[in-house]
Amino acid sequence: MKRAFNFNAGPATLPFAVLEKAKEAWLDFNGTGMALMELSHRSKDYEIVHNKAIASLRNILSIPDDYEVLFLQGGASLQFSMIPMNLLKPDQTANYILTGSWSDKALKEAKKVGSTHVAASTKETGYHRIPELEEINLSEDAAYLHLTSNNTIFGTQWHQYPNTQVPLIADMSSDILSRPFQIEQFDLIYAGAQKNLGPSGVTVVIIRKELIQSQPALPTMLNYETFAKNNSLYNTPPTLAIYLLSLVLEWVEENGGIEAISKRNEEKSSLLYNMIDNSNGFYIGHADEKSRSHMNVTFNLKSEELSTKFLEEAKQIGFVGLNGHRSVGGCRASIYNAVPLEHVEALVSFMKNFKEKY
Amino acid sequence: MKRAFNFNAGPATLPFAVLEKAKEAWLDFNGTGMALMELSHRSKDYEIVHNKAIASLRNILSIPDDYEVLFLQGGASLQFSMIPMNLLKPDQTANYILTGSWSDKALKEAKKVGSTHVAASTKETGYHRIPELEEINLSEDAAYLHLTSNNTIFGTQWHQYPNTQVPLIADMSSDILSRPFQIEQFDLIYAGAQKNLGPSGVTVVIIRKELIQSQPALPTMLNYETFAKNNSLYNTPPTLAIYLLSLVLEWVEENGGIEAISKRNEEKSSLLYNMIDNSNGFYIGHADEKSRSHMNVTFNLKSEELSTKFLEEAKQIGFVGLNGHRSVGGCRASIYNAVPLEHVEALVSFMKNFKEKY
Repeated sequence: MKRAFNFNAGPATLPFAVLEKAKEAWLDFNGTGMALMELSHRSKDYEIVHNKAIASLRNILSIPDDYEVLFLQGGASLQFSMIPMNLLKPDQTANYILTGSWSDKALKEAKKVGSTHVAASTKETGYHRIPELEEINLSEDAAYLHLTSNNTIFGTQWHQYPNTQVPLIADMSSDILSRPFQIEQFDLIYAGAQKNLGPSGVTVVIIRKELIQSQPALPTMLNYETFAKNNSLYNTPPTLAIYLLSLVLEWVEENGGIEAISKRNEEKSSLLYNMIDNSNGFYIGHADEKSRSHMNVTFNLKSEELSTKFLEEAKQIGFVGLNGHRSVGGCRASIYNAVPLEHVEALVSFMKNFKEKY
Repeated sequence: MKRAFNFNAGPATLPFAVLEKAKEAWLDFNGTGMALMELSHRSKDYEIVHNKAIASLRNILSIPDDYEVLFLQGGASLQFSMIPMNLLKPDQTANYILTGSWSDKALKEAKKVGSTHVAASTKETGYHRIPELEEINLSEDAAYLHLTSNNTIFGTQWHQYPNTQVPLIADMSSDILSRPFQIEQFDLIYAGAQKNLGPSGVTVVIIRKELIQSQPALPTMLNYETFAKNNSLYNTPPTLAIYLLSLVLEWVEENGGIEAISKRNEEKSSLLYNMIDNSNGFYIGHADEKSRSHMNVTFNLKSEELSTKFLEEAKQIGFVGLNGHRSVGGCRASIYNAVPLEHVEALVSFMKNFKEKY
């Protein structure tokens, strides 16, 4: 069996060791005579898995006790609505920094809930960069400031976060666990699992406890309090997805934690950016150098025709997922935590050969 | 490896053939060099799985073209809110029939959205039975009538559905695919997957197309239109859960479809109810005979002490999940589609031995 060179933007490649471990326990989890997904979510065997996932995440990200770790469903897209529904009061304004399609969508949902303000935006220049901290202008009565830490479509990433007087919220779907950051700088972090955490179908929310308030008028399933009060077991959680998440977290711990992963990620992205920068304009990076993402490397070739040829040949050799997002075109290599260095080396080698050929 | 006698109420046992098939394809789905959950949800390989699940469900339940089949997240509990948010207009009243905890919860969420009316209830007599059709009293301006087709906690099940002038909505989480029914009698059916359909983490909604309306004020992820317009691919769906659902549906098709499954289910439940009825009061069924569920057989023993002993001994021999729901106590055997006849026979045999012993 040959593993594909999987550069998918998400769902994305998972650590092979995780897949193998899950396969081994697939028919008979922990000697129960049942598959993990056949266990009751109220059983001790499942509870251990559930709590281990929370404990690992707390350990890896050094999450203090005054934060809750919650498992939800619906992806980051449902958080776009839940955040204003839970945190935006009628006399307040929700602040958003626009750095790409996902933050646009988050803003769009907040507008349905209440008053909003764009605190900064790089939309006019095609989302090539992350705004400077000085560009951020908060509104009065800001309920919170929302940003997207990494932009999968445009290949940009925040490298320094603002210090704010208001709660700071980050959609970290595409770079959580990829590099160290100070959790205390944030009040709410959320991430769909399908890039760095596991399979699609579970969303992680890390929220400062004091932000969770009793709001009986909210639908029960859209209220953070429901999940916080019940250890994310108010109703049946996506047990299989949480189990796989726990295995990915274990893999992170076994592989040196976030510092080691971060170093490896920088190594991987450097290989690609060096290739682009030293190609004499054959490959053209999309993002401004200062805003480059270590997770999604976006680039074009000299001509659209050449880009098409590049993607075709890459596909034939077995590279998967190198097409840019349908909204922007071009090429994109998503190199999340689980993408092996060797696969990036193979891509760089292909890029070199392709350049020499044309 | 010994399979447990799994009588869990949900998540519940899955067909062993499905588990084996999933295991076989686990590391390398369809020769892609990737696991199913590593595929992009926009890839052809995944799309085939996704559309096959929809097609199988349409085939098994004979769903006509004027219904949409949607895959959502959040379980039936999120549907409790989405249904009134999408279907209850300000000048209308949502009608609910109360037959247990789940319908209670559905009503509670609808009350947050608008005006409600209890069209029938058997709460006063401890939810031992399903109301007679004559007991149902609709309000004026009823937006819809909601019922729970099978009540896992109390072990009751509808055996004849009302014919209504207003849209009929059913939570079929715990008995979908267990027996034939006329889909046209309903306007919306929903079911969390974790009993008869697959693992937890995906919710099936079957909705008459004319009920889906453009409602731009609704959060995008809580609007049925979003899922209908995008073939449930607006954002990343829970791909692994949908894949496993597709395998369970394939298993249903390969095992004679819903008629054959239904016959087997009746055989299984008859074994247990006969045991109860012929025990001279040693085992006492909870549900009224006419309202008995073929999915969840609830019973008590003569004394609480004996019930406790029964559950203890059963557990020691390897029976899993026989405890009644924590809200009602006693015993419960959940015998969903995938519970083999032999496991029910083993339980009946244990019940016989236990009775002889005490």
